[in-house]
Amino acid sequence: MKKVKIHITLKEGVLDPQGKAVQGSLNTLGYQSVEEVRIGKYLELILADDANVEEQVEEMCKKLLANPVIENYQYTVEEGVTQ
Amino acid sequence: MKKVKIHITLKEGVLDPQGKAVQGSLNTLGYQSVEEVRIGKYLELILADDANVEEQVEEMCKKLLANPVIENYQYTVEEGVTQ
Repeated sequence: MKKVKIHITLKEGVLDPQGKAVQGSLNTLGYQSVEEVRIGKYLELILADDANVEEQVEEMCKKLLANPVIENYQYTVEEGVTQ
Repeated sequence: MKKVKIHITLKEGVLDPQGKAVQGSLNTLGYQSVEEVRIGKYLELILADDANVEEQVEEMCKKLLANPVIENYQYTVEEGVTQ
């Protein structure tokens, strides 16, 4: 088994209204030192052992998980995970 | 400035219907080796320099960012970030 950790974040320059809302809430709650919040996604995938995991994950990100127009993705593959 | 990276994940045993849906879609797209998908959140916060950042972030997670009943959170603080 392999564990893949994927981070999907908005590209720089892309507006993040969800992050802005959270920042506003944090400021209202008294955390005035919060100057910016950007919200992304974090996915953990468990994959059966396969020859070309990296290639597959790259494809999955492009096709389904991320929107390459406005999002960046990064992933790490951990080998030999036991569930 | 400090950059705080927060990972919010569902606790083990908590159902993740969003993850299940993504897993189903990946399987349908031909990625049969995907056995499990869990989806969490990834936040990046920029904070002004302040004495007790760690304490503040801990509080923010408990009060607003995560739901401690069903979610775990982890964070790292990077010092001296220039925007």
